[in-house]
Amino acid sequence: MPPIDRRRLLRTSAGVAAAVAVADTAIAQTPPITHSLTGKAPPPEVTRILAHYAATAKVDAIPDAVRKEATRTLFNWVGSAVGGSRQDAPSHAVAALGPFSGPPQASLFGRHERLDALHAALVNGISSHVLDFDDTHLRTIIHPAGPVASALMAFAEYRPVPGVDFMTALVLGIEVECRMGNAVFPEHYAMGWHITGSTGVFGATAAVGRVLGLTSEQMTWALGVAASQPVGLKVQFGSMTKSFHPGRAAQNGMLSALLAQQGFTASEVAIEGFDGWGQALSTRHDWHEVTDGLGAHYEVALNTYKPFACGIVIHPALDAAIQLRTSGNLKPEMIKTVALKVHPLVLTLTGKTEPKSGLEGKFSVYHAVAAAFVTGRAGEQAFSDATVQDPVVVALRKKVTATVDPAIKPDQVDMLITLEDGRTLHLFIEHAVGSQKQPMTDAQLEDKFAGLAEGILPADQTRKLMDLCWAVWSLDDVGAIGRAGASIKAG
Amino acid sequence: MPPIDRRRLLRTSAGVAAAVAVADTAIAQTPPITHSLTGKAPPPEVTRILAHYAATAKVDAIPDAVRKEATRTLFNWVGSAVGGSRQDAPSHAVAALGPFSGPPQASLFGRHERLDALHAALVNGISSHVLDFDDTHLRTIIHPAGPVASALMAFAEYRPVPGVDFMTALVLGIEVECRMGNAVFPEHYAMGWHITGSTGVFGATAAVGRVLGLTSEQMTWALGVAASQPVGLKVQFGSMTKSFHPGRAAQNGMLSALLAQQGFTASEVAIEGFDGWGQALSTRHDWHEVTDGLGAHYEVALNTYKPFACGIVIHPALDAAIQLRTSGNLKPEMIKTVALKVHPLVLTLTGKTEPKSGLEGKFSVYHAVAAAFVTGRAGEQAFSDATVQDPVVVALRKKVTATVDPAIKPDQVDMLITLEDGRTLHLFIEHAVGSQKQPMTDAQLEDKFAGLAEGILPADQTRKLMDLCWAVWSLDDVGAIGRAGASIKAG
Repeated sequence: MPPIDRRRLLRTSAGVAAAVAVADTAIAQTPPITHSLTGKAPPPEVTRILAHYAATAKVDAIPDAVRKEATRTLFNWVGSAVGGSRQDAPSHAVAALGPFSGPPQASLFGRHERLDALHAALVNGISSHVLDFDDTHLRTIIHPAGPVASALMAFAEYRPVPGVDFMTALVLGIEVECRMGNAVFPEHYAMGWHITGSTGVFGATAAVGRVLGLTSEQMTWALGVAASQPVGLKVQFGSMTKSFHPGRAAQNGMLSALLAQQGFTASEVAIEGFDGWGQALSTRHDWHEVTDGLGAHYEVALNTYKPFACGIVIHPALDAAIQLRTSGNLKPEMIKTVALKVHPLVLTLTGKTEPKSGLEGKFSVYHAVAAAFVTGRAGEQAFSDATVQDPVVVALRKKVTATVDPAIKPDQVDMLITLEDGRTLHLFIEHAVGSQKQPMTDAQLEDKFAGLAEGILPADQTRKLMDLCWAVWSLDDVGAIGRAGASIKAG
Repeated sequence: MPPIDRRRLLRTSAGVAAAVAVADTAIAQTPPITHSLTGKAPPPEVTRILAHYAATAKVDAIPDAVRKEATRTLFNWVGSAVGGSRQDAPSHAVAALGPFSGPPQASLFGRHERLDALHAALVNGISSHVLDFDDTHLRTIIHPAGPVASALMAFAEYRPVPGVDFMTALVLGIEVECRMGNAVFPEHYAMGWHITGSTGVFGATAAVGRVLGLTSEQMTWALGVAASQPVGLKVQFGSMTKSFHPGRAAQNGMLSALLAQQGFTASEVAIEGFDGWGQALSTRHDWHEVTDGLGAHYEVALNTYKPFACGIVIHPALDAAIQLRTSGNLKPEMIKTVALKVHPLVLTLTGKTEPKSGLEGKFSVYHAVAAAFVTGRAGEQAFSDATVQDPVVVALRKKVTATVDPAIKPDQVDMLITLEDGRTLHLFIEHAVGSQKQPMTDAQLEDKFAGLAEGILPADQTRKLMDLCWAVWSLDDVGAIGRAGASIKAG
């Protein structure tokens, strides 16, 4: 039987629907014809190579520095999930899906309900992203932990998973997720996909498949089932569905791994094959980004964490404000003017001069800087309605000016403060805190975590939870972290 | 704040990742900018219009002929789901997901297990498509019932739904699903999407949203959540994941409707907006296919059903074989030769001369015709390993020849039989049974149903189940169909 040019079959336009309709079911069961018609070299066996790596990579191969960054990734994710746990998005999800939940297998961070592991993965994924305060893989803007850790943690409460196995799976899941992102960014993102959800499914699948002990073949099927379930469009930004994306990616990933474990088959070229994921979801696919140098370096080592609960475009200004506030022991009434030189995107994206609500405050560099001077922080509370409307903050906001300077890079700012007593304070931020060149310290991550958990968990519980996270590699059962992060009473 | 050219932002290539990373979170919460930069007229408000229609259309507006075809659609779907219920795909899904299932809210056709409604929707959707024997909307090759009916039936067991409401929701769900398909076919399909899964999510959402009584605004959010969860790639054809697609679409749709009911928000331009479903999933989007003439005609009225358990490319030959077998009272030993003139696709897709297995038999017009002569049927049994290897069938297969005739249309065949006694029998099929011009009769649908249920349900149970399906519009509680279709004992 000669190869069928199915593309042509589908693109001859007139009368094509009828022909396709006739051919559909038969085509349905022919083996995939991979790029035999393009004349180009076939892509590497992306799905099989990635699956084999995720199923068989050795934990001993993971360097200490990578392990440490993976621990920080988990730590920051747990804090974010606790912090977002009482928002409307996770609350609505629990209300909607509770009646369909299976046995209470897993906890929800910051909440008292327990759900089956699949639903818990969804809800924790939503909670961890809803404040937009989670981690960022800068090259692809993937928020890596949400899909992967949400799936793993829920699974670890269903069936105990030792720390070494859990963290190895986390490293490998993030590797799969971010390598898929590297292969298709930015075209895939430009098409409209919210890349955290669309590549996150693969990461969650690989991670759960790993702790399930899938064979390479089962892992290949698992990634195949995952390929059929991408999640997330950028059009949802600004709605609750944005945070749904990492949650559903986590859930889809766990589902894919569970199905494959039972022998549920999928295409073994689902990612790279004709009519596969790459073809449908991106105009760019550099598959060597996925298959080359596996184990030679680790994407999780490149992870970054946000110190402030707002778009990172204004992080340099917040960094400067908090540094000068501390070093100058400044009170709001001491400040006469604050003059900023900023990257052009700052005013394009956050140039709102008269914000009225907390959400609008996130789009006002003027408010953000003023709130940081007044409170010394720029966590979620700095962007509450109350803070945005606080007369002290409003008064200071009016003293802040910002001018665009093309010489200022995205992670830089120049801040000049003139005090009422005539003194001036000047600071140039070379790399804002939280950037890859100026990572948050462990202590700063703890401050952030504690700020997020405030009002949700008692302080001693938060302390215990943080300690468990730092110790994750040596835990006998990582499910202990999930249980320690649940709220004892209804919030 | 001037509008931001986010496309350009993303497409300037060098250094873009950094800028995007900086901008991401801020962009995240800006309102969507809909086509303000293309210079073209903005699309209609597809998501809102479709949602409003699905939420508010009146049942009285649905003509009798449309109701009748909807009944046949449901009937054929139930038979297909029973017939596929013992295949590996649904069995593996039940094994994998049973431990995570919630309360036993809903039955599974042809099986004894009961699962929560979300999982039941998945499994019934898999069962109904796994034999490739379900319905077809010819213009788009969507198999309409799988996603929509699987979601509705599971819901109707969770909360009783009267027949009128159930069937109105089925009609509207299929309307939504097929109109979405009309807007993007064939480009969307050519990109790699298995359109039954990718548009089926919208149909299932609208249907469940309808029986939930969602407001227009809630329905808009529901369709929005659905837009973020397309399912299905054609690369999966030939694996179990193909049948997973309508099942998961059903489940995603129910989930979307349930979330929206609780106030879970999504973009209200999720389908047509910048960075929305249309942009990401198709190069063609004729949104007027979705928004024009709502209520003036119904896509379900165009639905078709397959009489034979194989690709429809060989249906004309099977139709001819069964007609001549009956009219000539033929026995296999009477036949000397069978000469077919066929459409070119028949040999391209089903030209296998020496099939060894049941699956290979589906790709052999020679086997299919021989089996039809021997057994008088071409149901799933005709494509079993045993039938393909049956010496009587093999002997007859070798007497079948087929030549391509460009004058033969896809739903036509010319068959000339020469008998051992020298007589010849000739039949030209103008439109094969099951095509839109020669629909299956209700009696033929019953034969098909009974054949599918054979060996799975007792004959009296099958009879009762068929009667309930025909009576669906007048049932007080359509959940009765789901319960009547379950197997009393483990299969």
